[in-house]
Order: sequence, then structure tokens, then C-alpha cells
Amino acid sequence: MTAPKVKAPKKGKAQDFVLKTPKGTKDWADKDMVLREAIFGTLSNLFKKHGGVTIDTPVFELREILTGKYGEDSKLIYNLEDQGGELTSLRYDLTVPFARFVACNNIAAIKRYHIAKVYRRDQPAMTKGRMREFYQCDFDIAGNYDTMVPDSEILALLCDGLNGLGIQDFKVKLNHRKILDGIFQACGVKDEDVRKISSAVDKLDKSPWEAVKKEMVVEKGQSEEVADKIGEFVKHNGSIREVLEYLNSSELLKSNESAQKGIEEMTILADYVDAFDISKFLSFDLSLARGLDYYTGLIYEAVTAASAAPENAAELKAKNSDKDEDASAYVGVGSIAAGGRYDNLVGMFSNGKSIPCVGVSFGVERLFSIIKSRANLENVSANHTDVYVMAFGGGEGWNGFLKERMEVTNKLWKAGINAEYLYKGKANIRKQFDAAEKAGAKLAVILGKEEYPAGQLRIKVLGQGQENEGDLIQAEDLIETVKSQLKTDVDDITRIIKGL
Amino acid sequence: MTAPKVKAPKKGKAQDFVLKTPKGTKDWADKDMVLREAIFGTLSNLFKKHGGVTIDTPVFELREILTGKYGEDSKLIYNLEDQGGELTSLRYDLTVPFARFVACNNIAAIKRYHIAKVYRRDQPAMTKGRMREFYQCDFDIAGNYDTMVPDSEILALLCDGLNGLGIQDFKVKLNHRKILDGIFQACGVKDEDVRKISSAVDKLDKSPWEAVKKEMVVEKGQSEEVADKIGEFVKHNGSIREVLEYLNSSELLKSNESAQKGIEEMTILADYVDAFDISKFLSFDLSLARGLDYYTGLIYEAVTAASAAPENAAELKAKNSDKDEDASAYVGVGSIAAGGRYDNLVGMFSNGKSIPCVGVSFGVERLFSIIKSRANLENVSANHTDVYVMAFGGGEGWNGFLKERMEVTNKLWKAGINAEYLYKGKANIRKQFDAAEKAGAKLAVILGKEEYPAGQLRIKVLGQGQENEGDLIQAEDLIETVKSQLKTDVDDITRIIKGL
Repeated sequence: MTAPKVKAPKKGKAQDFVLKTPKGTKDWADKDMVLREAIFGTLSNLFKKHGGVTIDTPVFELREILTGKYGEDSKLIYNLEDQGGELTSLRYDLTVPFARFVACNNIAAIKRYHIAKVYRRDQPAMTKGRMREFYQCDFDIAGNYDTMVPDSEILALLCDGLNGLGIQDFKVKLNHRKILDGIFQACGVKDEDVRKISSAVDKLDKSPWEAVKKEMVVEKGQSEEVADKIGEFVKHNGSIREVLEYLNSSELLKSNESAQKGIEEMTILADYVDAFDISKFLSFDLSLARGLDYYTGLIYEAVTAASAAPENAAELKAKNSDKDEDASAYVGVGSIAAGGRYDNLVGMFSNGKSIPCVGVSFGVERLFSIIKSRANLENVSANHTDVYVMAFGGGEGWNGFLKERMEVTNKLWKAGINAEYLYKGKANIRKQFDAAEKAGAKLAVILGKEEYPAGQLRIKVLGQGQENEGDLIQAEDLIETVKSQLKTDVDDITRIIKGL
Repeated sequence: MTAPKVKAPKKGKAQDFVLKTPKGTKDWADKDMVLREAIFGTLSNLFKKHGGVTIDTPVFELREILTGKYGEDSKLIYNLEDQGGELTSLRYDLTVPFARFVACNNIAAIKRYHIAKVYRRDQPAMTKGRMREFYQCDFDIAGNYDTMVPDSEILALLCDGLNGLGIQDFKVKLNHRKILDGIFQACGVKDEDVRKISSAVDKLDKSPWEAVKKEMVVEKGQSEEVADKIGEFVKHNGSIREVLEYLNSSELLKSNESAQKGIEEMTILADYVDAFDISKFLSFDLSLARGLDYYTGLIYEAVTAASAAPENAAELKAKNSDKDEDASAYVGVGSIAAGGRYDNLVGMFSNGKSIPCVGVSFGVERLFSIIKSRANLENVSANHTDVYVMAFGGGEGWNGFLKERMEVTNKLWKAGINAEYLYKGKANIRKQFDAAEKAGAKLAVILGKEEYPAGQLRIKVLGQGQENEGDLIQAEDLIETVKSQLKTDVDDITRIIKGL
């Protein structure tokens, strides 16, 4: 993006400012836009496949709605200026507006998806895909259902979604807030300290245990003994059944009600993820804590080697091929999708009458970077133009057939065919072919100086060299001929995402 | 929308506030959302048909970008709070951000469409579809082309778009800023008064001539004679060629350079709209002025009888059927799409290096109201669920086949089929059928207590009464059978918009 210093002349009053988008925002256009639209399309279809309906909520909410939901991160919320009337702020995520929507409309059960922008006054890191304005793609299930049934479907949807986007080398780390809280309690953490110890543990994917232990002991007032006990637990990960076996063997957890409840739920989950055939993607990881306060049950986070270190992705993938892999091979990379169960958030908006919810949010900007690095965008055009209508002629009395090109193009439009022509009265052949190529057109429909008045048109498949003159057809066969030549087997989304 | 007074319990600190969306905004969900998505889909396809590419710009812009573009309406701009850093405001339309985008990225030519929300601190009138947050659907052509060629295509696109949305009874009023300004000059208005006289004329669709004349004379300092001369011109409307004939016969305009330039352009346009076969929708109306300052050439506005007074729409339509109809039959209703040529806006951002532009904006909220009143939404489901997977059984040892339903549903998902099942371990038959109906499913796949273990499934077309038990098939034929039963000829968008 260029950022020229501009003097905009405006009724004598010159304006001096840098012409750019605000910090942490950007324009999306061209092939990037096509790729992002393809990702949105794939995810929308996925959400619909699971019975999702979409909603649209305002970009800003009453400020009170957002207050007290994001802990320390509340400072990142964008406020609108007080111009009289209500105080409002830009939404920070799609989850709190969803809970507000459910409470507001007295909804008892819904599966909703929402693909929309959210806003955070964060320090932007464009190269890592961290922006101040960015998209989230969320799917959430609200309603009272049997334990772990919607939760397991969300996991199936998550795995199916990443696969559908061409990502195979990912791992979904799972944990359960009730187990985690139970571990903290059983290790001797006081109830009021549980959340802050949890957020220390949350840093284990970026920091070594020694640093996290130091935070617990020095900053957060736990004894060395408590920290070491926690350290013993959180180093465990593996398949759901493996980690359950370890937890069930723990004497310390036997009498902890919260942990036992969580273990019971994870035991049920193990069966369901088998039914969905996704166990191979999952890793029960006792060090996963997730930042947000509002989670109450199962939590998860999908990570991939490729999102951080593409240069050694092959090596990690090879490592990944033996069965005893552990998730630590993926540590340090940002999550590409995450979520969990939050049973009390709706209740905060509806006098405590709560609706249990579970959901997942796909991190589109990171997915975009991964997919872009793999996709073959060379043959992708931002246009969807199929046909370019041209006129060939010259010499005496040649008027360029502008009106005739308009008429033929109009016929194509009426038949639902994407078509363009050059906006010039007289256009030379070279310029028309250049424009057709730029528009990504597949076919040229050519009006010849002699042929067209005789009721004939020429159809030429583009991109096959100049020697081919195209086929002469009767003007009345235009639509039929064009339609049959444009037929294709592979839809756009598949083609772009799979890099075909 | 209910607005309960809520006491949200939050760590001992009770919050008192009305649970609602901010003033002038609303949640979109359910069938309204499906209909709106169908409208967006139709317009996107239309824009692609004409070679459009889409872009995405930030919801807020640097405040300077918006300053001095909207005249009096600038007071309606939403500002973001100054939280340190740049001063920003929510976008007011999509045209100024587009011009900023073109200048910013040094684009010489683009056909772009943009479907996105804009923000105006207006007095909301929800029943009339006037909101503070609302969608615009814009298509613009930027670039140096032959006179009136892109302009005529925009008009063709506008007519095709309204037809595609099932709207036939509309009229596109046309005028030309150069002609209008020439008329004012020729009638004796000083150059510095032209814009304010233009905005008085703009009120002619809502106010009688006497009121507009009074505004010109009393408020805007013109003589009675000047006002009467203007009044003589602006009462004319009809086909492009009819009004051109009138203008060409005017002695007053003969020596006015601006008017002659406009007349020349409209003469060219008359030919092109014939080529696109849209003359029947057009009315050259000298009273059309349009509010915004930035227009420099052709301006237009589509109006329909149905958008304001559905009760006498039939009468108006009948009146409309004789050839001498005039656009006054439609006066008083809000425009459903509008636009024009603005050749200098990009130049305001790029040191005067201007790129000529012409575009149209569809008023989606008004179109939504019209289409909703005509559409048959009864059979429309917000879900896209095709198949509901159920288990039938009971008696001793009956476990509800939950895992089995998960496995069968997963097979459908893997085959790309939209499918749901009840999130209950044991579910009775009635509840499963109710849920299937609510989800709008077309087929039920039934796992019978005896049949399923024998490798068989039952497929039942839903909505055909209870007596039909469905067809028994082999489990391995599931996907093929379901796919062949789900085939349909009419796509969703067509079905919804045409009310099928």
C-alpha cells in the first residue's frame, strides 16, 4: 500500500494528511479478496451442513453489554465518541453479542454461525496476521442437550472445516475447565486464586515450565510445593483415554468433585469422538487453559506446524507420522481455531436464566496466510468474467460495432452469462485481447465486419494461442454454444483452496 | 424485539440496563436474514455478470478522509472516541472510501462492487427502513472511457438488477448535472448560487412547485422572474429524445456551454440505452437534482409505486399502462436505487490526478421491504438442513442408537450433505419428527432397532403425512439414494425472491 502525502484541494482550504487506512486496518482486494471469499464460502457451507443459521448483529453494542466480559483485555475495546444519546462500543468478539442476542430474543435453542468483523485496539502485527479490524467465523450451539453431544459435534465440525480448507497437519488440543480447576484445588490453590493460576498455566505454550512456575510462586503467591504439584499434572497429554487413565489413577483427584465431574464428561466424549472418527486429530492436554473467563467446560484449540514455521513443516510432519507424537511438536504456533463451552454467559444478560452454549471460532487471518502460501493463485482472476465480446474490422466505413457489441453482450447478460466488452467506440484487436485476458475471460465472442451483418459470430477459446481463429456460428446459436463451452466440473471454491 | 430490564449479576456488582441493540440498529435473523442474503446473492451475481470485482475497506476511516464530502449531512457522521492515536470515523457511504481506495492504490481502472454496512446518526424511522446502521450495495466503474459507455451499462445493470429482484413496476428518472447547471445559469442564477438552487429543486419530488419557488425567492435570494424561468424548465419530463427535442428548441440554452455539453452527452446516451433495450424504464426528468455535491454528469434515481403506497399500487400500475405516463405518478416514494457520475472525487485524494467514476447504489432496506411484502416466506426455512437422522425403537435393551446416529450423520456430512440429528441419547419418535420439521429437512433417514443391525436404513420423504413408512434401503446405498432424492431444479435465490 502506498501512502502518499496528499494536498487535497477543497474550496481553497488545503488539507494535509497521509492517505492511508487507519492503523491496524487494511483494504482487501484482488486475489486476496477472492481467496478470502472462498474461505468464507467453504466455512459457510460447513456451518450449513451442520444445521447452522446465520444472524447479523450491529457492529457496535451498548457499552454496558461488553463491560466486565473480557477481563484485562477490556482496555482494547474501541469506544464510539459520546455525540449525545447512548454510549456504545465496537464489538470485541462475536460471542458476547451472540449471548446478548440469545437473551434479548428469549431463544431456547439455536445453532448459529456468524462471519463478521471484530475490533481490538491491539498493537498490530500485520505479518503475523494480527490486525485491529479482523474477521471471525463462529459457530455456536445454544440449548439444553445431553452431555457432550453438541460438544463432540463442534469438534467434528472443527476437524472437517480444517480438512475442507486443505489443512491436514493440525492437532486439536483439548482440556476441561472442571478438571483443570479441580487440579488447582487439589494441589492446594485457594478458590479465589484459581483463575489467575489458570492464566499462568495458559502461558505454557509460549514459556517453559520454569518461567510459569516462577510466575505462580513470585507473582501469584503460591508455595513451591503447590506449583510443583501442578507442574506434575500439566505435563501430561495424549489420547483422551490415555490421559483419563492417568487422571483416574490420581489419588489427589479422587475426592475432588469438580475434577471427577470433568473426568466423567471426558469419558463420555471419548466415545462420541470415536463415532465421528476424529480421535486421530485430538490431544487431551492438561496444560491447555485458554484465556477467557467465561468458559465452564470443555475447551480446545487447533494448532498446526505450518502456521508458524513453514520452513521446517516437512520435518515436523515426518515426526508427526509415528503414533507416539505429542502436541509439544506444535507448541509456539498460534491457534488457527479455538473455542469451548460457556454455560453462564447468556445468564449474565437474562437475570440468571442461563442457556448452555458451546462454540468454535475459526481464525480466518491465520488460515488465510497458511492457505495462501499453499494455494496456486496464478490462474485465479478476481473477475468472474466468462466471455469477452469483441469486434474485428477496419478500413473504410468501419465504425467499431460499439452498439452491436452492446446488443450481443446484453443477450449474454439476459441469459445469465458473465460478459464484458471494451468501453471504446473503435477498439483495436490487440487491446481487446489484452482486456479479455486481464478480465480472465474464457471465451471471446467476435463480431466480424463482414460476418456479423451476415448473421454470424465467431467463438474463440482464449489462452490457446493466436493461430486458432475460432469457430463460426450462427448468431441465433450464441447462447447455447457459449453455455456448452463454459461447462466445468470443479467449482471455484474447491479449485482455489486446493490450488488447482 | 423484547427489551427486558436486566439485572446482570457480575461479581457482586449488579448492572441495571435495558437489554437491547443501540438506537437505529437491529439484529437480523431467521427468515428475514435468509431473504436479505438472497437479495445480496442476486446482486453479487449481477455485479459479477458485468465484470465486477469486490473489495473490502475498513468500517472506519481517518476522519480527514470524510471531512468536506457530505455538506450539511456531515453532522450525521459517527466519530470514534479519541483513545490516543489517529482520529477516525465510521464510514458514511461506500463511495468516498472507494475513491480513497482508488487514489491510495493508484488504480487507473476498476469495476468494483461492495456490499457493506454504512453508518449515519440520523433520526431512525424503522418502519420506512431508515436505520443508523444499514447496508449499501454499490457498483462503480472507474476509468477513462468513451463518453456515456460505462454510464449506459450502469443503467442496464440497474434495470436488470431490479428485474432480477422481481420488481417490474419501476421507473428510472434521469437528469444531467451539466444541463441542470446550464439551465440555472441561463435563467440568471449566479454561479455561486447554483448548488443551493439545485438543492431546492431536489425537493420537487416531495414539495409542490409553489413551496420550492418560495424557498428560491425568500430563502435563497432569487428574483421571481428567475424562479419562474426555472419552473418552466423543470416541469418537463418524458423519453430521452422527447426532452432533448424540448431542450434543443430552447433559445435560452443555445449559448450555454454547460447545457450544450450535457445535451450532447444525453444524445449519445439515447442510442446506447436503445442497444441495451432499457428505454422503456427511463424517464428524462429535468426536476431531478440529487443531493450530493460530488456528481458531475448523468444522475439517476429508480422509484417504484409499490415502495410507498402498496394499497393503490394497482391503480398506479393501470395508469402506467398507457404510453403517455409520466414519472409524477411515482413521486413521493423513496428511491430504491440511485447514483451518478462523479469525475472529481478521486482527484480530491490524489493531488488532482482524477479518475472519472460512475456508479449506482441499491437501497437494500427499501428493496427488502418491497420484496418481503411480495415473497412467500412460508415454506422458507432459515436452516439449510436436508436430512434428519432418526432412530426408532423402544423396549428392553433399547439405547437410542445415539452413537449410531452420529456415525450415519457423519457419513452424510463427509458426502457434503446437510444433516442433523437430535442431541439426546434416547429420543422419542414425535420429538425427532418435530425437530426435523423445524429444521426444514426434506428427508428422514431412520435407524430401526431391528433394521439397522441388519445393515438396513429407511428413507422417508418428509411432509407427506404419517402413513408413509418410507423405503427400506441397504446401508451402503445411503449416500447415492439421498443424493438422488435431494436433486432440485430451482435454486434457492430464485425460489425465495420469486416467492415460489
